[in-house]
Amino acid sequence: MAKKVVTFGEIMLRLAPEGYYRFVQAGTYGATYGGGEANVAVSLANYGMDASFVTKLPAHEIGQAGVNALRQYGVDTSDIVRGGDRVGIYFLEKGASQRPSKVIYDRAGSSIATATTADFDWDKIFDGADWFHFTGITPALGDNVAAICLEACKAAKAKGITVSCDLNYRNKLWSKEKAGQVMGELCKYVDVCISNEEDANDVFGIKSEGTEVTAGELNKEGYKEVAQKLTDRFGFKKVAITLRTSISANDNRWAAMLYEDGQSYFSKEYLMHIVDRVGGGDSFGGGLIYACLNDYDPQSTIEFAVAASCLKHSVEGDFNMVSVDEVKKLAGGDASGRVQR
Amino acid sequence: MAKKVVTFGEIMLRLAPEGYYRFVQAGTYGATYGGGEANVAVSLANYGMDASFVTKLPAHEIGQAGVNALRQYGVDTSDIVRGGDRVGIYFLEKGASQRPSKVIYDRAGSSIATATTADFDWDKIFDGADWFHFTGITPALGDNVAAICLEACKAAKAKGITVSCDLNYRNKLWSKEKAGQVMGELCKYVDVCISNEEDANDVFGIKSEGTEVTAGELNKEGYKEVAQKLTDRFGFKKVAITLRTSISANDNRWAAMLYEDGQSYFSKEYLMHIVDRVGGGDSFGGGLIYACLNDYDPQSTIEFAVAASCLKHSVEGDFNMVSVDEVKKLAGGDASGRVQR
Amino acid sequence: MAKKVVTFGEIMLRLAPEGYYRFVQAGTYGATYGGGEANVAVSLANYGMDASFVTKLPAHEIGQAGVNALRQYGVDTSDIVRGGDRVGIYFLEKGASQRPSKVIYDRAGSSIATATTADFDWDKIFDGADWFHFTGITPALGDNVAAICLEACKAAKAKGITVSCDLNYRNKLWSKEKAGQVMGELCKYVDVCISNEEDANDVFGIKSEGTEVTAGELNKEGYKEVAQKLTDRFGFKKVAITLRTSISANDNRWAAMLYEDGQSYFSKEYLMHIVDRVGGGDSFGGGLIYACLNDYDPQSTIEFAVAASCLKHSVEGDFNMVSVDEVKKLAGGDASGRVQR
Amino acid sequence: MAKKVVTFGEIMLRLAPEGYYRFVQAGTYGATYGGGEANVAVSLANYGMDASFVTKLPAHEIGQAGVNALRQYGVDTSDIVRGGDRVGIYFLEKGASQRPSKVIYDRAGSSIATATTADFDWDKIFDGADWFHFTGITPALGDNVAAICLEACKAAKAKGITVSCDLNYRNKLWSKEKAGQVMGELCKYVDVCISNEEDANDVFGIKSEGTEVTAGELNKEGYKEVAQKLTDRFGFKKVAITLRTSISANDNRWAAMLYEDGQSYFSKEYLMHIVDRVGGGDSFGGGLIYACLNDYDPQSTIEFAVAASCLKHSVEGDFNMVSVDEVKKLAGGDASGRVQR
Amino acid sequence: MAKKVVTFGEIMLRLAPEGYYRFVQAGTYGATYGGGEANVAVSLANYGMDASFVTKLPAHEIGQAGVNALRQYGVDTSDIVRGGDRVGIYFLEKGASQRPSKVIYDRAGSSIATATTADFDWDKIFDGADWFHFTGITPALGDNVAAICLEACKAAKAKGITVSCDLNYRNKLWSKEKAGQVMGELCKYVDVCISNEEDANDVFGIKSEGTEVTAGELNKEGYKEVAQKLTDRFGFKKVAITLRTSISANDNRWAAMLYEDGQSYFSKEYLMHIVDRVGGGDSFGGGLIYACLNDYDPQSTIEFAVAASCLKHSVEGDFNMVSVDEVKKLAGGDASGRVQR
Amino acid sequence: MAKKVVTFGEIMLRLAPEGYYRFVQAGTYGATYGGGEANVAVSLANYGMDASFVTKLPAHEIGQAGVNALRQYGVDTSDIVRGGDRVGIYFLEKGASQRPSKVIYDRAGSSIATATTADFDWDKIFDGADWFHFTGITPALGDNVAAICLEACKAAKAKGITVSCDLNYRNKLWSKEKAGQVMGELCKYVDVCISNEEDANDVFGIKSEGTEVTAGELNKEGYKEVAQKLTDRFGFKKVAITLRTSISANDNRWAAMLYEDGQSYFSKEYLMHIVDRVGGGDSFGGGLIYACLNDYDPQSTIEFAVAASCLKHSVEGDFNMVSVDEVKKLAGGDASGRVQR
Repeated sequence: MAKKVVTFGEIMLRLAPEGYYRFVQAGTYGATYGGGEANVAVSLANYGMDASFVTKLPAHEIGQAGVNALRQYGVDTSDIVRGGDRVGIYFLEKGASQRPSKVIYDRAGSSIATATTADFDWDKIFDGADWFHFTGITPALGDNVAAICLEACKAAKAKGITVSCDLNYRNKLWSKEKAGQVMGELCKYVDVCISNEEDANDVFGIKSEGTEVTAGELNKEGYKEVAQKLTDRFGFKKVAITLRTSISANDNRWAAMLYEDGQSYFSKEYLMHIVDRVGGGDSFGGGLIYACLNDYDPQSTIEFAVAASCLKHSVEGDFNMVSVDEVKKLAGGDASGRVQR
Repeated sequence: MAKKVVTFGEIMLRLAPEGYYRFVQAGTYGATYGGGEANVAVSLANYGMDASFVTKLPAHEIGQAGVNALRQYGVDTSDIVRGGDRVGIYFLEKGASQRPSKVIYDRAGSSIATATTADFDWDKIFDGADWFHFTGITPALGDNVAAICLEACKAAKAKGITVSCDLNYRNKLWSKEKAGQVMGELCKYVDVCISNEEDANDVFGIKSEGTEVTAGELNKEGYKEVAQKLTDRFGFKKVAITLRTSISANDNRWAAMLYEDGQSYFSKEYLMHIVDRVGGGDSFGGGLIYACLNDYDPQSTIEFAVAASCLKHSVEGDFNMVSVDEVKKLAGGDASGRVQR
Repeated sequence: MAKKVVTFGEIMLRLAPEGYYRFVQAGTYGATYGGGEANVAVSLANYGMDASFVTKLPAHEIGQAGVNALRQYGVDTSDIVRGGDRVGIYFLEKGASQRPSKVIYDRAGSSIATATTADFDWDKIFDGADWFHFTGITPALGDNVAAICLEACKAAKAKGITVSCDLNYRNKLWSKEKAGQVMGELCKYVDVCISNEEDANDVFGIKSEGTEVTAGELNKEGYKEVAQKLTDRFGFKKVAITLRTSISANDNRWAAMLYEDGQSYFSKEYLMHIVDRVGGGDSFGGGLIYACLNDYDPQSTIEFAVAASCLKHSVEGDFNMVSVDEVKKLAGGDASGRVQR
Repeated sequence: MAKKVVTFGEIMLRLAPEGYYRFVQAGTYGATYGGGEANVAVSLANYGMDASFVTKLPAHEIGQAGVNALRQYGVDTSDIVRGGDRVGIYFLEKGASQRPSKVIYDRAGSSIATATTADFDWDKIFDGADWFHFTGITPALGDNVAAICLEACKAAKAKGITVSCDLNYRNKLWSKEKAGQVMGELCKYVDVCISNEEDANDVFGIKSEGTEVTAGELNKEGYKEVAQKLTDRFGFKKVAITLRTSISANDNRWAAMLYEDGQSYFSKEYLMHIVDRVGGGDSFGGGLIYACLNDYDPQSTIEFAVAASCLKHSVEGDFNMVSVDEVKKLAGGDASGRVQR
Repeated sequence: MAKKVVTFGEIMLRLAPEGYYRFVQAGTYGATYGGGEANVAVSLANYGMDASFVTKLPAHEIGQAGVNALRQYGVDTSDIVRGGDRVGIYFLEKGASQRPSKVIYDRAGSSIATATTADFDWDKIFDGADWFHFTGITPALGDNVAAICLEACKAAKAKGITVSCDLNYRNKLWSKEKAGQVMGELCKYVDVCISNEEDANDVFGIKSEGTEVTAGELNKEGYKEVAQKLTDRFGFKKVAITLRTSISANDNRWAAMLYEDGQSYFSKEYLMHIVDRVGGGDSFGGGLIYACLNDYDPQSTIEFAVAASCLKHSVEGDFNMVSVDEVKKLAGGDASGRVQR
Repeated sequence: MAKKVVTFGEIMLRLAPEGYYRFVQAGTYGATYGGGEANVAVSLANYGMDASFVTKLPAHEIGQAGVNALRQYGVDTSDIVRGGDRVGIYFLEKGASQRPSKVIYDRAGSSIATATTADFDWDKIFDGADWFHFTGITPALGDNVAAICLEACKAAKAKGITVSCDLNYRNKLWSKEKAGQVMGELCKYVDVCISNEEDANDVFGIKSEGTEVTAGELNKEGYKEVAQKLTDRFGFKKVAITLRTSISANDNRWAAMLYEDGQSYFSKEYLMHIVDRVGGGDSFGGGLIYACLNDYDPQSTIEFAVAASCLKHSVEGDFNMVSVDEVKKLAGGDASGRVQR
């Protein structure tokens, strides 16, 4: 029987002009749904896991379409609470070459941002669960949502469920100080920590000495040092750090490191021609959780997670629509892109 | 030189699935902009008037696109204040046959709904203006916006500018009691009142004795009685009442009455096959203001306003994209729809 | 807890040129999924029922997209068998005015058409079920599929589950003689029989004396006579007959009769401006089953079923995307199509 | 072996906003090709005739796309001359309800409008031909094109080929006086004359006494009188007059009369819900020529021609994409629009 | 007068999600047509050759659309037999970066796959022909189709027509053993053999000693050795081998070798940014045949064929929509992609 | 208050197949508007300048859509003259990889090409203006338009307005001799001259000794020499030369040089992955004028102009839809394309 993973957070309506049109040129918006933890849930459902996504969405059709977007891909939506006023929205303009992609958030006042602890019964939600995942975006939505997160973390721990967290710092949502304080409390319950090159510094002020992050060069010792410091402070069992080098809006390099039991494991690095950059980090988290739940060894774990997220960059939308076989094939070394007939 | 009309209110991003798709079937949304007073401004600009629309919109690109939507059609947007957090949104699902169109509003917290009287300098805005128009939707956005409306009305009166108001009651925004109180105050400054079959009753409790509105039959005496009562209470110079009979989501009958100097003037009635129903009432207002500013006689005025709005029902989007010549041709009796080569 | 309904049949990939384009003009096809029993399942899921659809679909992505189409709307797909070679396809060209819609089937060799009784464990599938529904299309796919239907019917009866069948004669799939023989055997297990004006005659040679079906006029006595004869032969508890009058490809009249305990109940008749005609009959079945499971009285039952299917004609695609509230509103008499804000 | 028909004229690039969008709202144009005589050629090719279209088109890709549009549907394009500067264009905005469709021509300077008699070798073109067709639009393109028409008519007569002409008066192209003079000369060579309600009057000043064309009522005697007068003046073997009643841009009535050997034959009248009005008259010509070439009796001829053009109004684009079987089915009385499975 | 080339095989309906959408994300499919030999025919027609494509297609509209797709571009379709049940289909998902393109075939039971030798009269078909081309896909459709191929080859030889064959091994259609046996028999009649890096080995077990094909490096001696061995076994006059290096789904290198009279001629190698990879090999065949028929010297021949197919990778769809001038310009060294005004 | 810039020239309807479709594959055309001087005006309006575009456009809706395209982005269109017969058109096919983009002009007979000096009152147009810009395309439209240009130049000089000209030689419009003669006269009034690598040579026969332009290598001394010679002949205050290296239709290098007071200033060079190449040079002009009007130093000026036009290559359409902040960010060195949240 498939392992059960519960994720909790916000799912937003994503409105994106087609192709490379700028916002002011758009006469239509592609309408999909996405959000950090929802994206992880879809990744896992696509890998055959029993993935459940928990949030609050309005009872109207725009909320319903969010539910449908998830259950279409097999995510369990039965613990989504219906109520509140609106679905959070983000507008996404796809960049090209030297022009960056641009995100405009319109998420204030969403149903989940106005939810309370009374909306969620974590004991019931975690029934039969093996893993709980959330990101730093969710507690950033407000003190009320941070309180829900804390309840969830405690309930998970009480049931012996593994907890993972992607730090995912968003400066539009809260200050570094506030983030450090809230996340510091939540991380006490976290077993597996995911971070990109900058989050550990932004949230906890943890960085390696002498690292020049913006240079885009792999400073292996520096990353290991950051992971070590995070582990020292919070007692994480695993720390995974993603390493992105942005050559242009079209071309990025992508790799990651897993730190576990004092050892660091670096993945291959991929040069990616990007179809859709958003959700790249979440697809890494999805791959990582899958590999952990299936008892991959550390090197295989980080290779699976990076290959999974490499493929995500070739897929439109927030969700990573790839199978375990596809990820394994790439992780195994076949990056030629030859037609599969 | 063209007469100058100032309108004030909210312009929203309208997101509509294409064709007859329901919300939960939509993978793309057509993205246009509209709102009661903005629609009137576009109507007037299309008729060659000097039309200015006043509102508050965020500084970001979604706000800018709203500005562009207006100035594309020649509306003066130089008095639009930029700031605040979000553009109000409404989702529109087009109905067909027995299935009604459906609107989901997501407008709370918009820039205009959070604006203050300090944002607008009406003396400057009304410089050179001949007419000021607003609808009952705008003061319904909040006490702060009602206060702005009141300032505008007073400034208009002080400058001898004609003021028109479309009652436009929205029960999602406020109660009938609140509406009656606020609108009662504002209507003291109004010269030309526009109402549909139900607004006068919803807002002011004014109805004719024995009228059965839902029956859809023209009760000419009843409409005249309502207009008379409105005039008695507020001293309006003109009262215009639109008369819609909804046969189905595709087919409506449409007519109107103008009440002036104790006389009532009924327009022809049109049977319309509907392309887009939204903005129908606003296009009536636009036609009415145009006719008044160009000194049409009462019968010609009401015929022009109804023909204008009849044509609007054949045009996609909130805005009425028709010319004076097109309206006059229909008002003059040519409804055959023969190809114009 | 919601009642559980199991439906069994084929779900096809539907490929339709957009708008009114003819096949030879099509550069793109809208790709949706549909099929008699799948359509009923979606109707019921939209009404909040626990609806399960059973079929066989290939393991590849075109098959997966069929699964996703169903679970997106909440249909339980866990009993769908994966295997076989292909998804059945039907091409649909939408007619207009005097030009009829056209369907080209390409369904031979589909996974379900080549399935065997060994593929389905009806005892397990019917666990907790209250109702089983199939149509005459399914046994027409081949003797192997007819055998599966027979096993399903027997298993349903053994568990005391109500069985409904829509006769749905398709002359492209089998002869009238063959249909009469196979359906005659299956109907022994059926409690609720659904038929249109011609099916009873095509399949069983049952017609009323003196009925002129093509005339499109309601011969109430004739329909009652047909229902009586069907009941006499098969012992149906209820017989429902839909009554369609095709004025043109755009405009149809639509009504139905329910025959129960020797009494006939006629619904209101609707004049429909058609958005999508396909799935109209299936949406009637979905409405009928819902009403039966919720113990509506006979008149309310037939009104609900007809109102549901009336609304379907305004919805794109095979599936009837309407709620119980929407159906009740129409059945209750509000057919005005007024905008719902 | 199929009868061979040669048609001669201009084929234009047709640029039309999708759906009911107005020109100023259009961000894309549907790009198809059409023109009076080209439309007739496609009709005939769809009926299995050997149809050839003769024109001049530029050597570049926009010209090539025009050639391809024709040969895609089986029209022989081997006698199209390549050269000159541009493809004529017409912009088409589809009307709805009381708003008429609108055509903006941009055809001056097209390759055919600047062609000379030296471009065409009619003896070679007419090799094996049974019928030659042109419309009044073609000689209206300029004296040079009128001269080509005259050469073609003379060559056709010399070879005993039947000549048909649709009067098709376009006031944007020439005056009534000029039209009368040029067409008067050309009509000497014409055997079959096609006209709508107004052309005979516009071009030749021929009308019935007391006819009130705009009234839209069938004045059978009046039409017969016009046909008689035309026959008297030019010695036509057959005169066909189409009778359109425009209820609105969406709904038209459509019928026609054939006058032959002193007898008039009136077709059934159809009420059409219009998908695309343009090319309606040409599809009548195509049907008429087909019926004549296949020796239909006069009543069957006019019924076929009118049914063919009735169906055209349900087809997008200038071309009538229907088969002989489809036309016969409608002419035979089945106008129900029932789904063809 | 243009040389006449006959090609024989299957043309399929190609259904592809737009852009980079995955199958399970597709709401519409682009609908075009393609197939190995049909693609060659279109290439040749675009070069001004008299190209005829022979196949069997159903009489219905989906079959007709396949005919139209060919004749639109000037391919002679008069020898296409109409009948049978279905058009073969292939679903195509376009890959990006490390994610490969994916093809799902749904071609079993197509009209051509169920055709018999009685359907084709090769003596008549080859009347006036200079060249006959087929690929290894066609005999792989079944013994019946292999028998048709054999008859065609014999008839071609009897008439002194040059025969070319692209080995094109498809492991979904037959085993290597079966392919080797059937193709071995057919190749006795072949003059010009086309193969990619792997076909010769898959079909005939012919490979060079020490070649490491997957390495993507040009082993010039190895390719020459393979061509020599093929020539030795079958007596081919020319052997052409294409050399693809797949860097990613977006970027490929592309070159080829022609072996003739014991000499090998290598083309330039192109680095291509891919728009559409499918049909790349067929466009090489089309270029090769054109060059041979126009008596290009061996080096010019292989440069033309490779430049032609290089350009194909920049064109959407199976068909290579380029002119002789465009190919020559690239073969001549201008690969800068500068705007042509 | 913003500086006022007047530009004068032609704005054309641009019709482009979507994505990478070739002309003969296009079923729809994206419809936008563009032209050298109009593009510059939009650039400047987007930078907050008071930009006015002067031309002549027909009074019909296709002309109106051109006006709207400009005023949507804030360009002052009040001096556009309405009249004449047609809007110039250009068809644009986007190239990829080795396949170049292709432009087919259909601009003869446009309203501006048939305008006369009487249409424009330059004294009034230049009221309050700081800068006047035109390109070599405009006088190439005809002697009448060259005469208008000359009047404009003289009027500008008389008012002390700075004049800039982009040489922009188009060989489809006039010969090098004619261009040299007309432009030689106009350049007497020009202060700022813009040219690409070839224009100076094509128009004035000015080139550096030993420069091999096609090689694509930066010959810094050569460019300086050309600028020096231009300055010597016409007394330009500044000469800017753009330097494009076309690697393929997808990838270009892009840089420029500014020559001022005997000094040459070279910008950074960018490697661009191209979204839309058209308008690239015009966006350089827009950036240059902005920088000059805002008193940037020479190095900052050329960096701003090149960064602006580098970004243009990532934007669909002729118009450069970027802000001053975006340009400054790139000019300042951030070319990473990282997502802006």
